[in-house]
Amino acid sequence: MSTSTVHTLGELANLLEVRLNGDPSVLITGLATLKSAVPGQLSFLSNPRYASQLAHCRASAVIVDAEYAGACPGAQLISSTPYVTYARASQLFGAERKPAAGIHPSASIAADATIASDVSIAANAVIESGVRIGSGSVIGAGCYVGADSTLGEHCMLYPNVTIYQGVTIGNSVVLHSSVVIGADGFGFAFDGRRSVKIAQLGGVQIGDDVEIGAGSTVDRGALDDTIIGQGVKIDNQVQIAHNCVIGEHTIICGCSAIAGSTSIGRYCTIGGGVGVIGHLQIADKVMISAMSLVSQSISESGIYSSGTGLLESKEWKRNIVRFRQLDDMAKRLRELERLAQGRPSAPGDSV
Amino acid sequence: MSTSTVHTLGELANLLEVRLNGDPSVLITGLATLKSAVPGQLSFLSNPRYASQLAHCRASAVIVDAEYAGACPGAQLISSTPYVTYARASQLFGAERKPAAGIHPSASIAADATIASDVSIAANAVIESGVRIGSGSVIGAGCYVGADSTLGEHCMLYPNVTIYQGVTIGNSVVLHSSVVIGADGFGFAFDGRRSVKIAQLGGVQIGDDVEIGAGSTVDRGALDDTIIGQGVKIDNQVQIAHNCVIGEHTIICGCSAIAGSTSIGRYCTIGGGVGVIGHLQIADKVMISAMSLVSQSISESGIYSSGTGLLESKEWKRNIVRFRQLDDMAKRLRELERLAQGRPSAPGDSV
Amino acid sequence: MSTSTVHTLGELANLLEVRLNGDPSVLITGLATLKSAVPGQLSFLSNPRYASQLAHCRASAVIVDAEYAGACPGAQLISSTPYVTYARASQLFGAERKPAAGIHPSASIAADATIASDVSIAANAVIESGVRIGSGSVIGAGCYVGADSTLGEHCMLYPNVTIYQGVTIGNSVVLHSSVVIGADGFGFAFDGRRSVKIAQLGGVQIGDDVEIGAGSTVDRGALDDTIIGQGVKIDNQVQIAHNCVIGEHTIICGCSAIAGSTSIGRYCTIGGGVGVIGHLQIADKVMISAMSLVSQSISESGIYSSGTGLLESKEWKRNIVRFRQLDDMAKRLRELERLAQGRPSAPGDSV
Repeated sequence: MSTSTVHTLGELANLLEVRLNGDPSVLITGLATLKSAVPGQLSFLSNPRYASQLAHCRASAVIVDAEYAGACPGAQLISSTPYVTYARASQLFGAERKPAAGIHPSASIAADATIASDVSIAANAVIESGVRIGSGSVIGAGCYVGADSTLGEHCMLYPNVTIYQGVTIGNSVVLHSSVVIGADGFGFAFDGRRSVKIAQLGGVQIGDDVEIGAGSTVDRGALDDTIIGQGVKIDNQVQIAHNCVIGEHTIICGCSAIAGSTSIGRYCTIGGGVGVIGHLQIADKVMISAMSLVSQSISESGIYSSGTGLLESKEWKRNIVRFRQLDDMAKRLRELERLAQGRPSAPGDSV
Repeated sequence: MSTSTVHTLGELANLLEVRLNGDPSVLITGLATLKSAVPGQLSFLSNPRYASQLAHCRASAVIVDAEYAGACPGAQLISSTPYVTYARASQLFGAERKPAAGIHPSASIAADATIASDVSIAANAVIESGVRIGSGSVIGAGCYVGADSTLGEHCMLYPNVTIYQGVTIGNSVVLHSSVVIGADGFGFAFDGRRSVKIAQLGGVQIGDDVEIGAGSTVDRGALDDTIIGQGVKIDNQVQIAHNCVIGEHTIICGCSAIAGSTSIGRYCTIGGGVGVIGHLQIADKVMISAMSLVSQSISESGIYSSGTGLLESKEWKRNIVRFRQLDDMAKRLRELERLAQGRPSAPGDSV
Repeated sequence: MSTSTVHTLGELANLLEVRLNGDPSVLITGLATLKSAVPGQLSFLSNPRYASQLAHCRASAVIVDAEYAGACPGAQLISSTPYVTYARASQLFGAERKPAAGIHPSASIAADATIASDVSIAANAVIESGVRIGSGSVIGAGCYVGADSTLGEHCMLYPNVTIYQGVTIGNSVVLHSSVVIGADGFGFAFDGRRSVKIAQLGGVQIGDDVEIGAGSTVDRGALDDTIIGQGVKIDNQVQIAHNCVIGEHTIICGCSAIAGSTSIGRYCTIGGGVGVIGHLQIADKVMISAMSLVSQSISESGIYSSGTGLLESKEWKRNIVRFRQLDDMAKRLRELERLAQGRPSAPGDSV
């Protein structure tokens, strides 16, 4: 990937605050993987699995830990955290083409909305009454911001995002396309005949530096607010139900769903496709592996999993039949152990 | 949560058709949970787990079952179904700020669409040829209603909903943002070389009082229609494939998916993240727990589950290895039982 | 389902390249299932399970394999691949009502976009700078096409699709509503305190004849592109993460998610609700059954599954307790086998 941005290696070492082994005047025009990099590009090694690719890497320079410096045919930017240094470098080369400030003539802006002078609002965006949008924010084409919602500074809403009324969003929040914030939580009371709607009277609060991926949804609270803490990163097609509280700096991977009123701690990592049922408390620094179902609160940090693992279907079918017999097998095993120990089973014996 | 709505307790008792223990002249300005309520607010107790919070609740009144009346420091609205009474109260305080009737000048309305005089159509909505929209309905900003589709009375389409052509929607239907109704069902015939598209010639019928959450999708039928029965409530990011029939008053929680041509009965509850494969018949009043896979028809009402439950990953890994040996273990167990019974195994012996 | 299209049986036999048993002058006005067809309609039998419905089918003609010809009361179109013939017939009766070429006055088109003269662009669509759109393509209402993205010929974008900048789309690609192509991949480097954004500098390439269902998302690559091969068909609410490569003619059913940098082979079938973790290699012609988690690379074509199957919850709870004891049970079983063989266990003995 090449961009029009160009930096010398010397500049990059300064900007990234790392040490350079090599010629500081070499020009770098972009970033690439070890495998696909060409001269003029910068690459990186963060996963030791790929260390063998260093020898043949054609990049002009590579971001590496000091222990791999000797293995690089070209220059090196020496970092004890090469993945973080790569992340910072990517921002230098991938500077968002931020649209110019100003309001497109086709946008519909309520007369009493308060919009900082350097905000950019694209075609067909709709900003309702009482909305406040802070300095440097960008509202993409076709976005909708409902009445009395607030966006902080330097927020980025990609096209076709929908924000309902009464949502509070901090600074530097990124919302990708088709995200919906503040739709009604799923609340109904069954009266024996039909489901009576529970009006969802709470709102949503989203902290600073949150990013939410395409197609994700965060529902408004029933009475209190749904809360997404500062620095939380949410991938695509994630569902956060009403009155959830997501702790600061937690990461939620794609297609996961958190049911209503569950609180997740800080610095957690929720894998892809995970389900967390409602009204649970999850501690800080918990990791849940992909497609697990969390059906009980978790009070200890650690790694948790569920599922059977993948098998060839024939083998899976043979074993799955036995899964249904597991309790029976456990009892029969206990009985054999009793026999082996020379004592008879008794009715009501615990297994 | 406070709104500008104010009711006296006496009024509330009348409107909610429940008995009041307390001063009917007390003013109530909103609803809150037992924990966060302040004077001037109404709270409720439906889950006995929270009964201990009654003693310290600062709400001016609480909706409770008669058995908890004595535990309340303030007034009580006595209901045998406090959750339903709370739902009704929430509607009194959360009356939707319904937009005024009228068509925004930026909306595109086909000349031959038939739109009741009191309908509200917001900015940039697009209404195609032959569409009919009934009295009191609201079409949000950026919504699209395809040719010859019909919406009944008092429907609410939040912003950025898409309805394809030929969809029939009843009265009082609520569709949240990013919902897509009537996209093509997933139908292809593989000719040995490539997948040949099966044109999806059916439509979608949605009954009265249906609510569908943000980002959910309901596909049009291949030949016959896909049908969502009256009173069905569907949460966010649910997928209903072509030719499904969802029985009246069934509830489908977030991120579930129902594959093609499956019929689900009436008054079912499908938990979150559930998958139901295609061409199945599910009886009335079936409950499926979260993240279960339904791979066979269910003819009896009841509760059904799948999955392994969540374990610490280390413990999970130990056990999951054994899952792959289950069939082998079952056979070895049977062999030991034979030995214990003093008879030799025979080739072909059933296990 | 009836349309205004009418064909004689003779014409249909010619167009579908199959043999007709019956009167070629009979008029056919539409397609229907065996069960619901009426005279004047054409039906089909592809699944032998429904063969018993032939006897009472009222369709004027049925597409069948030769072996069922005798069972049809009416005319037959004889095909060795009746499902493929039905697919082709559906296209004859379901010809898309393609909108007329032209650009709606409310669309916003960048001055330097290159748009073929017969393209149709609907209300409120936004086409950014540098975009190229090929002949015969249709851009639905409210769609957004980001800077420098390219669409080939005869593409169909249903309303409210979002394409980010720098996306390359081939010919005859169909994108359903709420699809998002090219949003940022989910890439962050944790610096011990917070998640540092990795700018997503790659793009997305989508091959010819791809169809992507409503609400699905395909992320742009981190450095290299995300690639969707020719003829791939993706159902609704599927998530394809950054740098995935999906092989030609593979089918991905609804609500599945493929994590980053995974390559899936050609002619695979990924069932609904499947999760595939990142950095895996899946061979050609692999089938994954619904809601399986693929957590290791698959090098052999075949059918693969995971999960426990569905049980009544009571029975499931009894067995699930034992799942947690499986490793313990396996060890106890081994011990009994040792006893039965008359040899004592030794510390460190392998089980």
